[in-house]
Amino acid sequence: MRKTTNMYLDKVKEECGVFGFFDMDGFDAARMTYYGLYALQHRGQESCGIAVNDNGIIRVHKGMGLVNEVFDSENIQELKGTMAVGHVRYSAFSDFQREDCQPLVSRYIKGSLTIAHNGNLTNAYELRHKLEHEGAIFQSSSNAEVIMHLAARARTKTHSIEEAMLKVLKKLEGAFSLVIMSPRKLIGIRDPKGFRPLCLGKLKNSYILASETAALDVIKAEFIRDVEPGEMVIINQEGLRSIKYADETTYSHCVFEYIYFARPDSVIDGVSVYAARVQAGKLLAKAHPVEADIVVGVPDSGLNFAVGYAQASGIPYEEGLIKNRYTGRTFIKPTQDERAISVNIKLNVLKNNIEGKRVILIDDSIVRGTTCANLIKMLKDAGATQIHMRIASPPFMWPCYFGTDIPSRDELIAVNYSLEQIRQKIGADSLGYLPLEDIKNIGLRKDRGYCDACFSGKYSVNKLPNGNQKPSKTQEEIYDNPRRDKKDFKIIKN
Amino acid sequence: MRKTTNMYLDKVKEECGVFGFFDMDGFDAARMTYYGLYALQHRGQESCGIAVNDNGIIRVHKGMGLVNEVFDSENIQELKGTMAVGHVRYSAFSDFQREDCQPLVSRYIKGSLTIAHNGNLTNAYELRHKLEHEGAIFQSSSNAEVIMHLAARARTKTHSIEEAMLKVLKKLEGAFSLVIMSPRKLIGIRDPKGFRPLCLGKLKNSYILASETAALDVIKAEFIRDVEPGEMVIINQEGLRSIKYADETTYSHCVFEYIYFARPDSVIDGVSVYAARVQAGKLLAKAHPVEADIVVGVPDSGLNFAVGYAQASGIPYEEGLIKNRYTGRTFIKPTQDERAISVNIKLNVLKNNIEGKRVILIDDSIVRGTTCANLIKMLKDAGATQIHMRIASPPFMWPCYFGTDIPSRDELIAVNYSLEQIRQKIGADSLGYLPLEDIKNIGLRKDRGYCDACFSGKYSVNKLPNGNQKPSKTQEEIYDNPRRDKKDFKIIKN
Amino acid sequence: MRKTTNMYLDKVKEECGVFGFFDMDGFDAARMTYYGLYALQHRGQESCGIAVNDNGIIRVHKGMGLVNEVFDSENIQELKGTMAVGHVRYSAFSDFQREDCQPLVSRYIKGSLTIAHNGNLTNAYELRHKLEHEGAIFQSSSNAEVIMHLAARARTKTHSIEEAMLKVLKKLEGAFSLVIMSPRKLIGIRDPKGFRPLCLGKLKNSYILASETAALDVIKAEFIRDVEPGEMVIINQEGLRSIKYADETTYSHCVFEYIYFARPDSVIDGVSVYAARVQAGKLLAKAHPVEADIVVGVPDSGLNFAVGYAQASGIPYEEGLIKNRYTGRTFIKPTQDERAISVNIKLNVLKNNIEGKRVILIDDSIVRGTTCANLIKMLKDAGATQIHMRIASPPFMWPCYFGTDIPSRDELIAVNYSLEQIRQKIGADSLGYLPLEDIKNIGLRKDRGYCDACFSGKYSVNKLPNGNQKPSKTQEEIYDNPRRDKKDFKIIKN
Amino acid sequence: MRKTTNMYLDKVKEECGVFGFFDMDGFDAARMTYYGLYALQHRGQESCGIAVNDNGIIRVHKGMGLVNEVFDSENIQELKGTMAVGHVRYSAFSDFQREDCQPLVSRYIKGSLTIAHNGNLTNAYELRHKLEHEGAIFQSSSNAEVIMHLAARARTKTHSIEEAMLKVLKKLEGAFSLVIMSPRKLIGIRDPKGFRPLCLGKLKNSYILASETAALDVIKAEFIRDVEPGEMVIINQEGLRSIKYADETTYSHCVFEYIYFARPDSVIDGVSVYAARVQAGKLLAKAHPVEADIVVGVPDSGLNFAVGYAQASGIPYEEGLIKNRYTGRTFIKPTQDERAISVNIKLNVLKNNIEGKRVILIDDSIVRGTTCANLIKMLKDAGATQIHMRIASPPFMWPCYFGTDIPSRDELIAVNYSLEQIRQKIGADSLGYLPLEDIKNIGLRKDRGYCDACFSGKYSVNKLPNGNQKPSKTQEEIYDNPRRDKKDFKIIKN
Repeated sequence: MRKTTNMYLDKVKEECGVFGFFDMDGFDAARMTYYGLYALQHRGQESCGIAVNDNGIIRVHKGMGLVNEVFDSENIQELKGTMAVGHVRYSAFSDFQREDCQPLVSRYIKGSLTIAHNGNLTNAYELRHKLEHEGAIFQSSSNAEVIMHLAARARTKTHSIEEAMLKVLKKLEGAFSLVIMSPRKLIGIRDPKGFRPLCLGKLKNSYILASETAALDVIKAEFIRDVEPGEMVIINQEGLRSIKYADETTYSHCVFEYIYFARPDSVIDGVSVYAARVQAGKLLAKAHPVEADIVVGVPDSGLNFAVGYAQASGIPYEEGLIKNRYTGRTFIKPTQDERAISVNIKLNVLKNNIEGKRVILIDDSIVRGTTCANLIKMLKDAGATQIHMRIASPPFMWPCYFGTDIPSRDELIAVNYSLEQIRQKIGADSLGYLPLEDIKNIGLRKDRGYCDACFSGKYSVNKLPNGNQKPSKTQEEIYDNPRRDKKDFKIIKN
Repeated sequence: MRKTTNMYLDKVKEECGVFGFFDMDGFDAARMTYYGLYALQHRGQESCGIAVNDNGIIRVHKGMGLVNEVFDSENIQELKGTMAVGHVRYSAFSDFQREDCQPLVSRYIKGSLTIAHNGNLTNAYELRHKLEHEGAIFQSSSNAEVIMHLAARARTKTHSIEEAMLKVLKKLEGAFSLVIMSPRKLIGIRDPKGFRPLCLGKLKNSYILASETAALDVIKAEFIRDVEPGEMVIINQEGLRSIKYADETTYSHCVFEYIYFARPDSVIDGVSVYAARVQAGKLLAKAHPVEADIVVGVPDSGLNFAVGYAQASGIPYEEGLIKNRYTGRTFIKPTQDERAISVNIKLNVLKNNIEGKRVILIDDSIVRGTTCANLIKMLKDAGATQIHMRIASPPFMWPCYFGTDIPSRDELIAVNYSLEQIRQKIGADSLGYLPLEDIKNIGLRKDRGYCDACFSGKYSVNKLPNGNQKPSKTQEEIYDNPRRDKKDFKIIKN
Repeated sequence: MRKTTNMYLDKVKEECGVFGFFDMDGFDAARMTYYGLYALQHRGQESCGIAVNDNGIIRVHKGMGLVNEVFDSENIQELKGTMAVGHVRYSAFSDFQREDCQPLVSRYIKGSLTIAHNGNLTNAYELRHKLEHEGAIFQSSSNAEVIMHLAARARTKTHSIEEAMLKVLKKLEGAFSLVIMSPRKLIGIRDPKGFRPLCLGKLKNSYILASETAALDVIKAEFIRDVEPGEMVIINQEGLRSIKYADETTYSHCVFEYIYFARPDSVIDGVSVYAARVQAGKLLAKAHPVEADIVVGVPDSGLNFAVGYAQASGIPYEEGLIKNRYTGRTFIKPTQDERAISVNIKLNVLKNNIEGKRVILIDDSIVRGTTCANLIKMLKDAGATQIHMRIASPPFMWPCYFGTDIPSRDELIAVNYSLEQIRQKIGADSLGYLPLEDIKNIGLRKDRGYCDACFSGKYSVNKLPNGNQKPSKTQEEIYDNPRRDKKDFKIIKN
Repeated sequence: MRKTTNMYLDKVKEECGVFGFFDMDGFDAARMTYYGLYALQHRGQESCGIAVNDNGIIRVHKGMGLVNEVFDSENIQELKGTMAVGHVRYSAFSDFQREDCQPLVSRYIKGSLTIAHNGNLTNAYELRHKLEHEGAIFQSSSNAEVIMHLAARARTKTHSIEEAMLKVLKKLEGAFSLVIMSPRKLIGIRDPKGFRPLCLGKLKNSYILASETAALDVIKAEFIRDVEPGEMVIINQEGLRSIKYADETTYSHCVFEYIYFARPDSVIDGVSVYAARVQAGKLLAKAHPVEADIVVGVPDSGLNFAVGYAQASGIPYEEGLIKNRYTGRTFIKPTQDERAISVNIKLNVLKNNIEGKRVILIDDSIVRGTTCANLIKMLKDAGATQIHMRIASPPFMWPCYFGTDIPSRDELIAVNYSLEQIRQKIGADSLGYLPLEDIKNIGLRKDRGYCDACFSGKYSVNKLPNGNQKPSKTQEEIYDNPRRDKKDFKIIKN
């Protein structure tokens, strides 16, 4: 039976994928959206939903679970309609509730309005507080509901949904990539800094909006271009229009999309995710070279970097860890006594390739350090003579307020330990992170700005949410400073 | 998998049961509510839910299905809290959606607000329309959400939820029995005409609100009194207070609660449902006597009336139809060829009791006439020599706007056929309905008014919803008038 | 998820219903069987199954749960075939396993063989032991598998399945009503004493076998006759043949089928179950008259008897207890603290009918006495001034070895306490059981013998299973003998 | 609801994994088996089961689905016991039935017997036929049930299960790796030719039997050795004993285990699967060199070979196809119109790596050719200028009678088309298979024989099942013979 849900209605960190389809050719919009969400499943596995518009009648199906768990041929068939909006969601909030599933569908003064949101508003609390003072009620804890309320109120004083949204956009701060469906229009909006991706595609005469290009590929749609930061695109029967709603935009694309979050086969804001990862691997090899026999990536997240590291270093790339393809969420967890098993379940060592070798082990990041320590032990047990750990990103040190789920600072190993302490804790023979300054060199466009605040502490917004203050020292000043003081990291309440 | 839902967001006819528990003694409020809903299950089998208040934190679990399908020991255990609100619901609206499940829980200016509603607002459309013009968004099609919006707005200008509700109540028209939970109070409200029941009980020092007394019995709570029409009762740690919010009230208790809807073991507004049914049977015997061998009730709805008919007529009461105790909702329906089976599945004739007998067959009402015709055929096939059909209520002729599900007038046999035509269609040897004037004599309190509009066409409200007009002729003028004209019934658009 | 099953493979007490359909007219045999099982659901709610024969190809669907839980329109549609065998089962064995679901389908020397069994073999253990010594393997704990093995072995030395079964029948002892399906025949067999019912019906030219006539009624089939004790009926394309395989038969129809187990609308071995119950009620009134105001039956099992008691005594029959129609198996059980609730959940008192009254309360039997005590307390709490408990059967004192589930003797109240002690324990003002000698007078055929061993201790078989011995004293000698000695009841190991 | 099953009871081709655990240290045998099965999941995804032995009491839980679907913490906890047998199964037989789930548990003369089987008996039909003539009944279509019957019969004439099995083994022909559990022993048996793998491990003092070493790794058990072809190992409280039951053994290890079926991290009969694959890639590079820009493997099956091809050819290894990690079985299949989508759903092209490149594409085998053609089209659409298809095994041409699922010969592209025709059909610029003679050089032990009959037509058994005859010409004689005649392939009925 479904789990009891908890109406905390507080702020939630969430990672999501969005998709929109405007049919002009007789495609089945719901099915196209289904395939699109399937390709975006990596962006959120907790819940998903599709809403369709059938001449003004909105049908919606949402649920907890993976796309292929929530949808079946029967319910997808009932979703008849010529426009569709889809959403996949992951929430770091343990008491995620069914009410939070998106797309959010509401009835308001001008009929129906459907919203799918990816990102995180930094002023959600203030907006919500103000709305509540005006008598608004909230049934979920999602940012989408805040935007929905603002849109409905703005719509009473404007002549179109675009106009209403322009009013709303003036009030929103932080990260948001939105797909919105009104009775006759499909609208894509990206925040002025472009934290989260959103792209535009075309299949015959039909338009598609998607978080990543991989979702265009799956339905064989052509990639047209990214929705620009600060842009609203409006699709209706007449075609596509664009409104640049932000006066000036200093881009802040999330670098973690390239490092970890996005699919390697996606191209985001003109940059191939795969190529960026291979390049990061190469830079890592240059920054932290070491004599060794083989380069091994941690599946799946470390593999692309390992390819780059091997190419730059000339040390052979080998598979050293095999992933069990059948890991599901309902797996029975090993007990405390069976702890040794817990890593082996998902990854096994390819002993023949490891035995007697000096191994360079590559992963995308270290969070708490536990998994990393287990893997290193596993490889050493299998006969590796040395393990040189290389991490394809700088140390995680600061919270993300823009939609990436990073654990509380108390749990981040890099916040609490020095480089040497970390090396000892994970049991590596050497340890090297990608230098912060190399982030910009992984192939990202030079004419754009990026957000690396989780590594650097340099936030591109004026005000952090919930009264949090920006760090007074930079990452460089703090990290591995021998006189480093714990309190330097404690400036920010998390 | 869950069915796709359809966001029509239109008006819905619904029958419901509500329950509230305010713990003062250390009872498990959620479990008490579970048992209470279980006893109210007959009032709605489509969805149910329980919300609890745990020092201001609201937890809620809702779902489609019966109480024992939606709740299990695991999820009921998670519903820790000292106040609880429960709801069961039936909806005549085929595209009932998950969002319509109650209790409705929202976050607003003063924390959380939970509403469970039984009844039907006759001005829901107007209220909603006005709210939408002010920028409100609606995520369900329930009346409860309209009330929620009004309450949230009123609360911004008042000092307490009671004050806010007093403002709201001035705007509501039609039928409503409400159980409301604010951060610290449990509130019961009944509309000024008292269409739907609501009673008050006590278990040690804890208070209970429930649609029917049977829900008090199940948890061994003591019945205190009915919530009065036009009364609001407020329960908090200090105890119970009452506010009579309506200046004058002309009662309009729903007679169909006594005839069919309520449990026989409930006592509503001082009248035992069982006793009212036995009395209706007696009046029916007096109004339509006939020489026969046995009196047989249609299980389960006709049995109590048959007891009364037998007592008044002196003709022996016998069981003639046996009900299959294992009928579930997922039953595979007989095909057209197997039509004969469809009645037999639920009811079988007790041949020995019927063969060679003149049978008086009693049921509570005739809607379309099909079931009735099938039963009569079954009994005749089993050897009954005569069937005298007796109906313990007047003919159904008008829509209910107050929360009882009556099919559209096109489908009502009494709207479309004369008494003699109906008799012929169902194949009875004689047919008699309870006379309209006898309704008041089934034991109902003489000092109260009742709503029998579905039979009489006499609506106690000033204005019918959706522009419907009151019938210009009375039931007496129309029904069985030899010059009866079809158009007399067509005044009201349905 | 499905429960882990426990391969005890021990003897199991089980109550069952069987059904067979041989199509000659183009009916859908599986659907007809589905409806038939539905009408037999009261005979077993734990598991059910249907096997069909489609020109020699056997298809089968079985599962744990009610008929409408295990079957849906999809799987019933896959069960194409012209012959069908169905089974419903209740097992007193807590570790009932999926392998025990019937019908049992096997492949053997002559193709497929399907068996559905109702009853209990008293020599199952010996037969099984002998088969195991010959190298047989057993995958379930059912009697049906023993019969299957015997049939397969006998078939290697005979020319037809009938001949083989005649050999097998010589070896079987105890109670068995069988429906067997070979590649081209449908066979019905009843044990020589006729413990369990089995009847024969016809629908157009198609034949039906069923445990009770109510299963014929549901599909509008005509009742032809009961399969006689000691008879085998063979149905194939040529029609019906009968073999009387037992030389002499001293009938032992189970009286508890009439008292409790069968549906009231069934007619078993020429006797209407309903009429037998009304008659038992009348005899009870004569045996234990008492001055009182009303007669109340415990729903549903006591209602028919109460009708008879009222008729014979002239004291008015009234409803006093209302049953909740929505009791399901997954109900959350009240905790120890909520014990008072546990009875109320299923039954509620109709206070108005009970208050101030002297009540004669009728039920079919008393097993442990707990339910009875709770009901009496409930009625007294509701204001009953006196409760006179009347039981429509003699006290349960001995085990049933023929397929009725009776708890171990340690738990039977009548084994452990005298009449007066029982009266005190249940809190009744007086207590009366149906006298043992009246059992034969409830309308049973005078030319037949009946098995009342659970009341009388008089077993009609020569040898009890598992080395149990017959009681040395009769019920009359033991029960309520003032010098009654506990050890008198302990002769039989249970 | 569960699907209706079809009792064909015919021969079934099946691929399986087996596991056994004999606890001496207080481990939880069921949990260890759960983790073991989890590591063997790739060997069968249709059903799984675990049986445990708790001092002679057998408990079993089986079901359709993946290991983490069938088992949860609740049912695994109920599986208390000190010995356990597990099984995962894939069946090519579409009407796979629940009765076929293994381990098969039976009760026989000496208590319980549990069997888990991997492989395929070539004389199963004859054995079964003979057993049926002796009166045996079969409830499933599995080879395991045949072995169970033989064991039970042999046991009546012998003094121990080992002796009984020695008698049985004389009768079995074909491929079988067995794990058997008697009341006090755990037994592992491998057929004399060693078609299917089976290995022995130890965890502290506890023994493990498993299809692959990866299942030892997951529970951190030590690999001791492979069970030898023609060996029976018996584990009881005293420890391990071995019986070599076959006089002479000419090994026939299945080469397809190395090419496709086994996990790369397993070591089978002394050969690392991963190393064998890399070596096959190298040999392929030598046999079919070509000028190109990159080497790309088809995920996941072609990746290891691609590594080897790249190493041997010096052409860079690149990722070119990205696999969606979230493919589940319940995926909604693209319609005919959406055909283009069906490949993209699981694999997407990494355009940046492919565009303008001459690509060597590597996969393990070609069956029907459809997938291959789609992939080549996808890569060409993405801008690949040439595609050189390389297959790391010889063409599939003959049926496997030993437990590998190969489609019927009618569907095999290599049976029906010449090399050049296949190249054209799949749209490759060149095509090369691993030469048949290179199979022995992929690292397999020179002192052992291998079965490559699916490629060569050279069967190592004397007699093929079901009257099939061995091919009269060798693969070399037939394949790509310009005068090749279709009928050469049609000798064997399939």
